[in-house]
Amino acid sequence: MDLFRPAGEAPVERAGAASAAASTAAAAEAAEPAGAPAPPTRPTPMRRRETAETLGRRQREISVAEFFQKNRHLLGFDNPAKALLTATKEAVDNSLDACEEAGILPAIEIAIEELAEDRFRLAITDNGPGIVRGQIPRVFGKLLYGSKFHTMRQSRGQQGIGISAAGMYAQLTTGQPVRITSRTGKKKPAHFFEIQIDTAKNEPKVLTDREVEWDHEHGTRVQMELAGTYKKGRRSVDDYIMQTALANPHATVHYAPPKGDPFERDRLTQDLPREPLAIKPHPYGVELGVLISMLGDTKGRTLKTALQADFSRVSAHVAEEICRAAGLNPEAKPRSLGVQQIEALFRAIPKVKVMAPPSNVIVPVGEALILEGLKQMVKADFYTATTRSPAVYRGNPFLVEAGLAYGGGLPAEELVDLWRFANRVPLQYQQSACAITRAALSTDWRSYGLQQGKGALPVGSMVLLVHVASVWVPFTSESKEAIASYPEIIRELRLGLQECGRRLGAFVRHRQRLAEAEKKKSYIQAYIPHIGIALREILGLSKKDEEKVVEVLTDTLERTRLP
Amino acid sequence: MDLFRPAGEAPVERAGAASAAASTAAAAEAAEPAGAPAPPTRPTPMRRRETAETLGRRQREISVAEFFQKNRHLLGFDNPAKALLTATKEAVDNSLDACEEAGILPAIEIAIEELAEDRFRLAITDNGPGIVRGQIPRVFGKLLYGSKFHTMRQSRGQQGIGISAAGMYAQLTTGQPVRITSRTGKKKPAHFFEIQIDTAKNEPKVLTDREVEWDHEHGTRVQMELAGTYKKGRRSVDDYIMQTALANPHATVHYAPPKGDPFERDRLTQDLPREPLAIKPHPYGVELGVLISMLGDTKGRTLKTALQADFSRVSAHVAEEICRAAGLNPEAKPRSLGVQQIEALFRAIPKVKVMAPPSNVIVPVGEALILEGLKQMVKADFYTATTRSPAVYRGNPFLVEAGLAYGGGLPAEELVDLWRFANRVPLQYQQSACAITRAALSTDWRSYGLQQGKGALPVGSMVLLVHVASVWVPFTSESKEAIASYPEIIRELRLGLQECGRRLGAFVRHRQRLAEAEKKKSYIQAYIPHIGIALREILGLSKKDEEKVVEVLTDTLERTRLP
Repeated sequence: MDLFRPAGEAPVERAGAASAAASTAAAAEAAEPAGAPAPPTRPTPMRRRETAETLGRRQREISVAEFFQKNRHLLGFDNPAKALLTATKEAVDNSLDACEEAGILPAIEIAIEELAEDRFRLAITDNGPGIVRGQIPRVFGKLLYGSKFHTMRQSRGQQGIGISAAGMYAQLTTGQPVRITSRTGKKKPAHFFEIQIDTAKNEPKVLTDREVEWDHEHGTRVQMELAGTYKKGRRSVDDYIMQTALANPHATVHYAPPKGDPFERDRLTQDLPREPLAIKPHPYGVELGVLISMLGDTKGRTLKTALQADFSRVSAHVAEEICRAAGLNPEAKPRSLGVQQIEALFRAIPKVKVMAPPSNVIVPVGEALILEGLKQMVKADFYTATTRSPAVYRGNPFLVEAGLAYGGGLPAEELVDLWRFANRVPLQYQQSACAITRAALSTDWRSYGLQQGKGALPVGSMVLLVHVASVWVPFTSESKEAIASYPEIIRELRLGLQECGRRLGAFVRHRQRLAEAEKKKSYIQAYIPHIGIALREILGLSKKDEEKVVEVLTDTLERTRLP
Repeated sequence: MDLFRPAGEAPVERAGAASAAASTAAAAEAAEPAGAPAPPTRPTPMRRRETAETLGRRQREISVAEFFQKNRHLLGFDNPAKALLTATKEAVDNSLDACEEAGILPAIEIAIEELAEDRFRLAITDNGPGIVRGQIPRVFGKLLYGSKFHTMRQSRGQQGIGISAAGMYAQLTTGQPVRITSRTGKKKPAHFFEIQIDTAKNEPKVLTDREVEWDHEHGTRVQMELAGTYKKGRRSVDDYIMQTALANPHATVHYAPPKGDPFERDRLTQDLPREPLAIKPHPYGVELGVLISMLGDTKGRTLKTALQADFSRVSAHVAEEICRAAGLNPEAKPRSLGVQQIEALFRAIPKVKVMAPPSNVIVPVGEALILEGLKQMVKADFYTATTRSPAVYRGNPFLVEAGLAYGGGLPAEELVDLWRFANRVPLQYQQSACAITRAALSTDWRSYGLQQGKGALPVGSMVLLVHVASVWVPFTSESKEAIASYPEIIRELRLGLQECGRRLGAFVRHRQRLAEAEKKKSYIQAYIPHIGIALREILGLSKKDEEKVVEVLTDTLERTRLP
């Protein structure tokens, strides 16, 4: 045993001779702790190892802000280019969510200013409902604070982390607070805040809180300064903005990038999307532990009424059936049940037929608007889109939309461009980990007239757009970059892609036929004058008759559809 | 605008005709919200959309336990097989860490019992220092609670999430509490606890807390019942245990799997690994926001002494140089500095030469023990291992070890088996996302005598072992499955792999030469009797002379090294 050991000196490694007998500069330094260089021969103070008591004294709570500051790659702040994109995205997603929840047609302004090559000022302004003064500090200065976590409703944000994490990243890299201007109505004053996060406590620190003049009747502006890198091309902020406009045809989007031309897109429709409704959990998706705490918290006075009240699609009849299958009394008090009884209930649920969850809670973009958006953004020869009927995975309703633009000026010799969306938010990273990609790879695009290598996206002049909407999108990571491959989701994705693929195939084949017919016609056309000459010689026609014959033959050919 | 809208009825989709006019069963249900079926013609009550006020009232804090319960895939609980592995791993990692911190040679017992095909009881018992009674509830019943988050020291655990997340998963899937028995010394009583997590508050709920008799003088036992799947083969619990034993030669490991033979491995050495020391952050790795809060919290009275006290490798001279490069007075009060001045300081740091961080804080397994472990676990013809000198990425010291076992009974026609480790913990998922894999792929194994396809691991009868140890391993996700590809780490990995590869190459070439020489000898050998006969006929030798000639020639051939 080895309880005591000198601190200032590295004991000789018993086995890893190469490392212990290291002769590099780094290892030479290693023998001298900072500030207290001790020659290896001098006796050094002894240091005791830990006991349960010393270990216990060092245990303490870690704030969730500290956790995410140290692990900020989990939230999409791994590198400067991605950080600029993620911060923009979090602010824009919040603006769009807020406008829609308030029934306002969104008008979003994004301005990114380059302060230095590695430093940017970001300002996102919306015409949303604004945020009441008392909530502003926590919405922007506290992680895991929000209104959406406990609801099952289609929305962009979910956890109440994104915008405060963006602010924390800004503060970490530039020391600057987040600046918020918000106004909740014409008759209300606008409030201006400067907020920092106290990461050790995960609480906001308000540096400034004052009323200001603002020319917006209602809305919110978020400004931050952060370290970042601005680039054009794939996975850029520009790409994100363009795709966001595409998936949100009801929004007006103005974007002033740090370099290059501004992007402006007026809304394509004056109709707000139908409001997505919140639903209760479906019994098929519940887990035992959740069921236990639901029955502990329920307002239902009997087991039967509790099941009816707290779950989607559980009628009195279904509730009774579940109780019967579990061998429990429907009139039992929910809080009187033991773990084993609740487990029996849990195991009984799959045995009872329960209607699928209501699917009108999912709001698609819609075929017509996907088409219109694609036509606006992509120059192509052929467009199609499809919105599938809602389906269900693990008790959660979801819906798939697909669209494509083909031909025209798109590059013909490269892999097709795949634009992925979840609840109208473009997904730009982790393409290969995403169910959408997996479904696109496993679709046979050769049967629709495209080239495709094994295990690869098809090659051709095409943009492929896929949107998954759900009350709960199953992302593979907290940075929301890829959708998990539930079999039900993969199935719907493939059906949607196949539908678009078939239409594309018909177009591609039709175009091939046209091109071939055109070729044949041009062959025949070349002979017509010679036929005219031959006829004149054989029949002794006049020059005028000959011209007439040529004219009639040309006309006939033009009106003929060659096989 | 669309502020008011009937709730019971889905408005007709303006564009997505296919989805709105859906005629499937799912969509038909959709028109009838649960519990309140309303024929589409009946007028329905109006529902107002949100305002800033109604939105504000719904904002609330989300507990980190709720967050991780809903996002448990972030912590490695995505599916039943992985969940069983992750829970085992979290408990074993904690046991090993505790033993080493207390200077105890670890003896770990792992028992997994199958209660049903999808349900297991897990018990991990160690001979560690135990946990003081007052800390037990929070260590096991609160996420983000621990002793290691704020220290930079090589250890398995880091965030104080793992074991309580495993308990939360157990509770979620079986409703059962985590059971803990712990004793801190011979003269102390053993305590038995049953603990649940109140996920809404992220606080422990103690169901049982009593003294018990226990035949261990000190140590901790964790028991939980959880939903899971047990399988053999790659990424199994069995694999994890075997690899853990390999990377922890100083630990005795007993494992009783749910099926099949127990695994027992006595420790290979009686020496504890050198104790990894905690270090202060290195100035080259600090971020502006962190620097700001360090200077706000420092105990140093001047800027100069603050820099010296709070950073690794900052001597009085270096501190002065940094201040000078920033145009700041070294005697300034740290708390008097504004953000702009601290930013100047931040920008000055890279301009000043600061010694690399001390590297004796990293503790390798060591070449000899890697070799011994490999020989015990893998039957092969050739073994080698190397421990590299420590290096630095982003201010953090780290170290790479590599080893391999080649030939013998290993399958020859498959990709080599890659065993990845971080701080002695086997990494079993996300192989393709890991820096170790990337380095192995980009090493040219053909020059060492193996086959290798482009962008693939080499093919051959080989197990490749790679260990990365650091005060802060940069994992790509919270589930700690893959190491991020910092260029400095990739470089060290490649150097380590190349070193092992060169030794392997020498062995492979030597063996090839031997095999070829053997082949040549066997050709020649076949001719020796004929030479004997020929000589007898030409020279008229006796039968005895002929035998003598054959004998001498055979003997000469055997002692000859053929090229």
